[in-house]
Amino acid sequence: MLRLVEKANVLMEALPFIKKFYGKTMVIKYGGSAMIDKGLKDTVIQDIILMKYVGINPVIVHGGGKNISDLMKKLGKDVVFLDGLRVTDKETMDITEMVLTGAVNKEIVSLLNLHGGKAVGISGKDGMLIQAKKKVIDKTKDYGFVGEITNINPGILEVLDREGFIPIVSPIGFSEDGHTYNINADSVAGEIAGALKANKLLLLTDIRGVCSDKNDDTTLIPTLNINEIPDLRKKGIITEGMIPKMESCEKAFQQGVEKIHIIDGRIPHALILEIFTEGGIGTQIVHN
Amino acid sequence: MLRLVEKANVLMEALPFIKKFYGKTMVIKYGGSAMIDKGLKDTVIQDIILMKYVGINPVIVHGGGKNISDLMKKLGKDVVFLDGLRVTDKETMDITEMVLTGAVNKEIVSLLNLHGGKAVGISGKDGMLIQAKKKVIDKTKDYGFVGEITNINPGILEVLDREGFIPIVSPIGFSEDGHTYNINADSVAGEIAGALKANKLLLLTDIRGVCSDKNDDTTLIPTLNINEIPDLRKKGIITEGMIPKMESCEKAFQQGVEKIHIIDGRIPHALILEIFTEGGIGTQIVHN
Amino acid sequence: MLRLVEKANVLMEALPFIKKFYGKTMVIKYGGSAMIDKGLKDTVIQDIILMKYVGINPVIVHGGGKNISDLMKKLGKDVVFLDGLRVTDKETMDITEMVLTGAVNKEIVSLLNLHGGKAVGISGKDGMLIQAKKKVIDKTKDYGFVGEITNINPGILEVLDREGFIPIVSPIGFSEDGHTYNINADSVAGEIAGALKANKLLLLTDIRGVCSDKNDDTTLIPTLNINEIPDLRKKGIITEGMIPKMESCEKAFQQGVEKIHIIDGRIPHALILEIFTEGGIGTQIVHN
Amino acid sequence: MLRLVEKANVLMEALPFIKKFYGKTMVIKYGGSAMIDKGLKDTVIQDIILMKYVGINPVIVHGGGKNISDLMKKLGKDVVFLDGLRVTDKETMDITEMVLTGAVNKEIVSLLNLHGGKAVGISGKDGMLIQAKKKVIDKTKDYGFVGEITNINPGILEVLDREGFIPIVSPIGFSEDGHTYNINADSVAGEIAGALKANKLLLLTDIRGVCSDKNDDTTLIPTLNINEIPDLRKKGIITEGMIPKMESCEKAFQQGVEKIHIIDGRIPHALILEIFTEGGIGTQIVHN
Amino acid sequence: MLRLVEKANVLMEALPFIKKFYGKTMVIKYGGSAMIDKGLKDTVIQDIILMKYVGINPVIVHGGGKNISDLMKKLGKDVVFLDGLRVTDKETMDITEMVLTGAVNKEIVSLLNLHGGKAVGISGKDGMLIQAKKKVIDKTKDYGFVGEITNINPGILEVLDREGFIPIVSPIGFSEDGHTYNINADSVAGEIAGALKANKLLLLTDIRGVCSDKNDDTTLIPTLNINEIPDLRKKGIITEGMIPKMESCEKAFQQGVEKIHIIDGRIPHALILEIFTEGGIGTQIVHN
Amino acid sequence: MLRLVEKANVLMEALPFIKKFYGKTMVIKYGGSAMIDKGLKDTVIQDIILMKYVGINPVIVHGGGKNISDLMKKLGKDVVFLDGLRVTDKETMDITEMVLTGAVNKEIVSLLNLHGGKAVGISGKDGMLIQAKKKVIDKTKDYGFVGEITNINPGILEVLDREGFIPIVSPIGFSEDGHTYNINADSVAGEIAGALKANKLLLLTDIRGVCSDKNDDTTLIPTLNINEIPDLRKKGIITEGMIPKMESCEKAFQQGVEKIHIIDGRIPHALILEIFTEGGIGTQIVHN
Repeated sequence: MLRLVEKANVLMEALPFIKKFYGKTMVIKYGGSAMIDKGLKDTVIQDIILMKYVGINPVIVHGGGKNISDLMKKLGKDVVFLDGLRVTDKETMDITEMVLTGAVNKEIVSLLNLHGGKAVGISGKDGMLIQAKKKVIDKTKDYGFVGEITNINPGILEVLDREGFIPIVSPIGFSEDGHTYNINADSVAGEIAGALKANKLLLLTDIRGVCSDKNDDTTLIPTLNINEIPDLRKKGIITEGMIPKMESCEKAFQQGVEKIHIIDGRIPHALILEIFTEGGIGTQIVHN
Repeated sequence: MLRLVEKANVLMEALPFIKKFYGKTMVIKYGGSAMIDKGLKDTVIQDIILMKYVGINPVIVHGGGKNISDLMKKLGKDVVFLDGLRVTDKETMDITEMVLTGAVNKEIVSLLNLHGGKAVGISGKDGMLIQAKKKVIDKTKDYGFVGEITNINPGILEVLDREGFIPIVSPIGFSEDGHTYNINADSVAGEIAGALKANKLLLLTDIRGVCSDKNDDTTLIPTLNINEIPDLRKKGIITEGMIPKMESCEKAFQQGVEKIHIIDGRIPHALILEIFTEGGIGTQIVHN
Repeated sequence: MLRLVEKANVLMEALPFIKKFYGKTMVIKYGGSAMIDKGLKDTVIQDIILMKYVGINPVIVHGGGKNISDLMKKLGKDVVFLDGLRVTDKETMDITEMVLTGAVNKEIVSLLNLHGGKAVGISGKDGMLIQAKKKVIDKTKDYGFVGEITNINPGILEVLDREGFIPIVSPIGFSEDGHTYNINADSVAGEIAGALKANKLLLLTDIRGVCSDKNDDTTLIPTLNINEIPDLRKKGIITEGMIPKMESCEKAFQQGVEKIHIIDGRIPHALILEIFTEGGIGTQIVHN
Repeated sequence: MLRLVEKANVLMEALPFIKKFYGKTMVIKYGGSAMIDKGLKDTVIQDIILMKYVGINPVIVHGGGKNISDLMKKLGKDVVFLDGLRVTDKETMDITEMVLTGAVNKEIVSLLNLHGGKAVGISGKDGMLIQAKKKVIDKTKDYGFVGEITNINPGILEVLDREGFIPIVSPIGFSEDGHTYNINADSVAGEIAGALKANKLLLLTDIRGVCSDKNDDTTLIPTLNINEIPDLRKKGIITEGMIPKMESCEKAFQQGVEKIHIIDGRIPHALILEIFTEGGIGTQIVHN
Repeated sequence: MLRLVEKANVLMEALPFIKKFYGKTMVIKYGGSAMIDKGLKDTVIQDIILMKYVGINPVIVHGGGKNISDLMKKLGKDVVFLDGLRVTDKETMDITEMVLTGAVNKEIVSLLNLHGGKAVGISGKDGMLIQAKKKVIDKTKDYGFVGEITNINPGILEVLDREGFIPIVSPIGFSEDGHTYNINADSVAGEIAGALKANKLLLLTDIRGVCSDKNDDTTLIPTLNINEIPDLRKKGIITEGMIPKMESCEKAFQQGVEKIHIIDGRIPHALILEIFTEGGIGTQIVHN
Repeated sequence: MLRLVEKANVLMEALPFIKKFYGKTMVIKYGGSAMIDKGLKDTVIQDIILMKYVGINPVIVHGGGKNISDLMKKLGKDVVFLDGLRVTDKETMDITEMVLTGAVNKEIVSLLNLHGGKAVGISGKDGMLIQAKKKVIDKTKDYGFVGEITNINPGILEVLDREGFIPIVSPIGFSEDGHTYNINADSVAGEIAGALKANKLLLLTDIRGVCSDKNDDTTLIPTLNINEIPDLRKKGIITEGMIPKMESCEKAFQQGVEKIHIIDGRIPHALILEIFTEGGIGTQIVHN
């Protein structure tokens, strides 16, 4: 009986958060270990379904770099990165699209359906969701079909949400002249969160959150204000892969997203622990 | 971290039940200790709110016999029971209506509102919910304004559910010739469950459930089929106050209610423990 | 046949007013003799039902001071008034709530249902309709649980109107810290009229209207502009109980109410005579 | 004041009928004196508007034989009747359609608009309302473009009703091979009442109702059962123009119309006197 | 097979225009030869039905001067024009209304129904569509019941469009004091186009379009800007009947109409050729 | 001008078919040459968009066998067929899913979007559209993950249709135990047509239709009744790939599909030529 009462108490601890987030949209960038480890995958899927049932509208944006590289290697293609971006010739673009929308996306849909969710997997082409153009950082460098977003048409996501489906989005964009682009999944998640005026953007990563000392998880910073970022970059606390994530955050805030969370996808049920417990488990980024 | 993972596991244990009961209506007869003890009251209220947030439509029918007797005594009226029914003259009826709809009902509404629910308290007169007539068991006996239900107009409950309110119902009926009747709350809960084709009727009582040996809680019968009842009555396992409850159950099943639960209201969070855990904590009654 | 034609003419006289008020909301403060005399009660009820059928949305706010005092006396409580306000200790508050929402409100609901209306009686707690706080006029005086309104959540009234129910409101408020407050019914009517942007606020009183000479009904002022009030107060034409009514009026006008009517509830069918005849029977207050 | 109370009583006398007919459809055949006398016209129009405002959906079907004959004479055409039917050659048909839909119909629309209704006048061609074919009673006789109804498409009437417009219908039909037909207005009213499952069909005539002695209005039969008709025909009480009216009635009853009223259009406000007073003023025909 | 492919190509040529005009409203002034010649009439009707089926909302405003004059002559009335306006005494007004709404309008409705459209013919009185007043150009001249528009209530048109009906409008207006007015059909079409914020106003005429040399169709000006008009008037290219049309155009543009087309109604299928082919067949007038 | 009139005539020839098919659903099996040849692809895409704009709801099911074999070969996998079915081990299934949903499906979506349609590409996993199980014809043979349909959940298709999107479906199914199945596209098209009670099922093939003499296109049978099929099989007119197609047809008819068309996808604009011209271009199969 004692155990039962404890169970009840856990459910009750979640209640204020359930109330608070009822009817809100949350965009989840799903990547890293949480997309590879079988056990972790199951917990992410369960978390998403629970979110949907308690009245949250989750929208999932997935990555899949490893799977792309795997198929490229099998097909004898060289995998080339330049400035952290995958150099994407036409053939690489075809492989990327096929792997992301035809394999990774559908695997997530399958898992959600098996666990009792109603998922629909789409790419940025479906419903003209993600319009993009060639990414040019520096004219002397050509990354091929690496794209950046020019416009989001969120109609299809709103339809799916309203009708009770969970949308799973592959980070593929298209241009009006008929090209397909490979886009960074963090950017896609950030822009979609902005276009939907999402309550939260949740980034599943392979780190504990933002830590003062990267090698010491106990130095986790639970809450950051977006305007502290420049200072943290100077101090070398925010580096590398974190830098573009922070740029996505800034843009998402401007479009009306309320909070952004950097979460450790290596922890089982990281999503609901972040959302439904006091304090959460990662770093939350707020703005004024 | 371990504690966190356990928390997540408890939420996950609830998930299959949340899925199963999404969009379903459950009628709760709220009475006994759970309506008197301050601590228990809070847990019932929290359970109801959680139910509403995870997509269940709870409808509450409350009792309040003790409060009626208390005011009668203060006003110098004798409290008379005959065959287990409160003999209800006009003055007693006025007191009963005032106490149930003006005090008990509003206290529940207040508590729900304070905990974040949106409750609306009504009596069987509002929206013409409960039409009744004088109860006659035996022509030689007159119980006064004790009534029995002739018709339920569930329209007002459906409106409140659809608009996100939690309806709290006082067991008062009216007749077309202008009389007010005091009706047994179990009957009201059963008939409303039937009229709404509720998925579950949950009766909060002051016993552990149906037990083979009333004095030994470890003899609890977790699942009963409604057609085993006659046999249990013969064996003296179902007696007294349980007998009319079982009659309400039978009628509710006929109108399409799926399951009926006899739950111990003395256990904190009895409702969600019954609904959201494997096995539950009381006796569930099923039918073919 | 002559009598028939006259009948038709009366109906026709009402037609322009029926057209004018189609789809409009009118808040009626129901109190005084019209709530005590059996014959008058019936005519008020019939008027309200007619209003509903010809397309007006009536919302009723009732008083009930006399009934409260009666029960207090029966229970041996002293009835104490200070500055025209009932001093309300916890026990008096409980009695007040019980009498208003459990007896007076339900009697009105019963009468409306018997005459063919579909009424739903609620208090300011239901649907969190009336948020209130302790009324403090002068820090040296304590009236107990006498409240003043801090916020109206008209959602529940809009739902009931839209679904064809007539809402009957008891003037009880609640505070976020869980207290119950006794609020002046005129204030409640005025604030609800404001929150609903009602076309009219109709106050049923025991006087003929505003009269230049209080003792001579033939000096009735048929139309007043709200900005003439200060002058009438100076002249001693508006005094006592009329003063807070006028303050409610002023606030109601600010929130968008179009006209306010002071009507003599001692006249049978006072409401429809005021609304559906040229000139009406009481004093109408307009603003610029 | 006495007069005021009487006014209120008249309104109250109408209330039970207003309740009873709320949301019901009534088809009115408008013809005879009530369509010619200026004063009577105004009272018919006012009655229709009052009906609409108290929640009834009136549908008007008008006649206009006199106007047709007038224009025919001006144009030098002979007016020929055979078996009570206007012999209608192509030119007569053109005149008939022009007069009914272009003059009579629009005059009614104008009057309704001037008195505050929102009317829309259509003919049986609009929205393909009335499909018809050539009427053949006896192969040796040819009435020209006199038609009988083969089908009613009530869609346009339902749209107009739902959107708050009052439909005014000219009794003109069309055939699939492109012909226009002149149809008896009583038949049109009866068939439309049937197609709309109207609550009442009201026939405005120039007689007091069905009277045992045609020359003595005091012998009016207030209520008739449709199955008494054959007997009344035998007795010579129902004759001539009444016979086809009764045939329309029979068909209307079969399609679900509840009651049919023969009313004296020479009495001002005949419609509301029939509908809103106990007993009415004409003959009502019921069926089992 | 070659012919089939050509057919497909024609349909494909229409596709970009179908896409572009999907859901748009177009007001068509229907008059001139296209309303008299049997063959042309059929093609106009077919064009309108095709427009409706491919998602355009056509609204037709018709003229009918010739038919009015014809009936006037038959009735022995003199036909008098002053400044290009028909002098309209009461009797002429009656004839005008009867001919337009009772003959011309219904003929168009018939044809549309026969070809598979669902048309509803109304005049400016129906649904109070066209409010008007007496047209006064110069106080010394009286044109009788020639009116000009003071207000358009487009509600009835919107209802008909939404419900799938094609509205056919006779250019008749009414004034609040009960008069009927004869209004220029071009003005009616222009004002209705403005009130509906139509995408296009299409004027069917008996000329090839605006031509530099009126006697030489090969000098057709395919596109004009509204601000070139004054210059064209000075040059004598726009004269007579074209001048008031241009004034209607100017007003329509101000209210939000996008383009206006002067089309030759003597060409079969002029409407769809103008709308669904590159370049069209007439003169399109644009504005900045 | 002559050419213009001809154009208009072609559009007019399509009108009766546009009327007839307005609001109807048509399922198109898209495969063969029409999916490979660049020019043909464009005409199929244009046809589908035209269908959508004229009020038809097209649903596309595509094949893609050649693309699967191509990638298998690149990856060094042997392509094995048994009884006309691709033997599908786990790796082949992964390749099949990736190619169909990640490459072929998205290419069709891209093309539709580029031509102005709003397409959404899904597989049978999305929205749990296609439930399947392992296909067993003969227990001694194992085709691997070749599946047959056990259930269609058409909800997601209905949502997409209603919201104006064109659904593109990959013939991939899932089983409740988590397996993915490769399903024959003709079967998928047939079953979806049945589940949607489609008006037509259109099969794009690489033959002229059903011909009495396969080698002579002039022997095309324009209309077949489904019950003539057994006889045609006996005669050797229906053979090989046509046999399973005919079995799909039979099932589709049983579920309420009205007509099935075998069309030659090698003809440009084959779809609209079949739908919008008298006689069509292929073989239509009807049933009693």
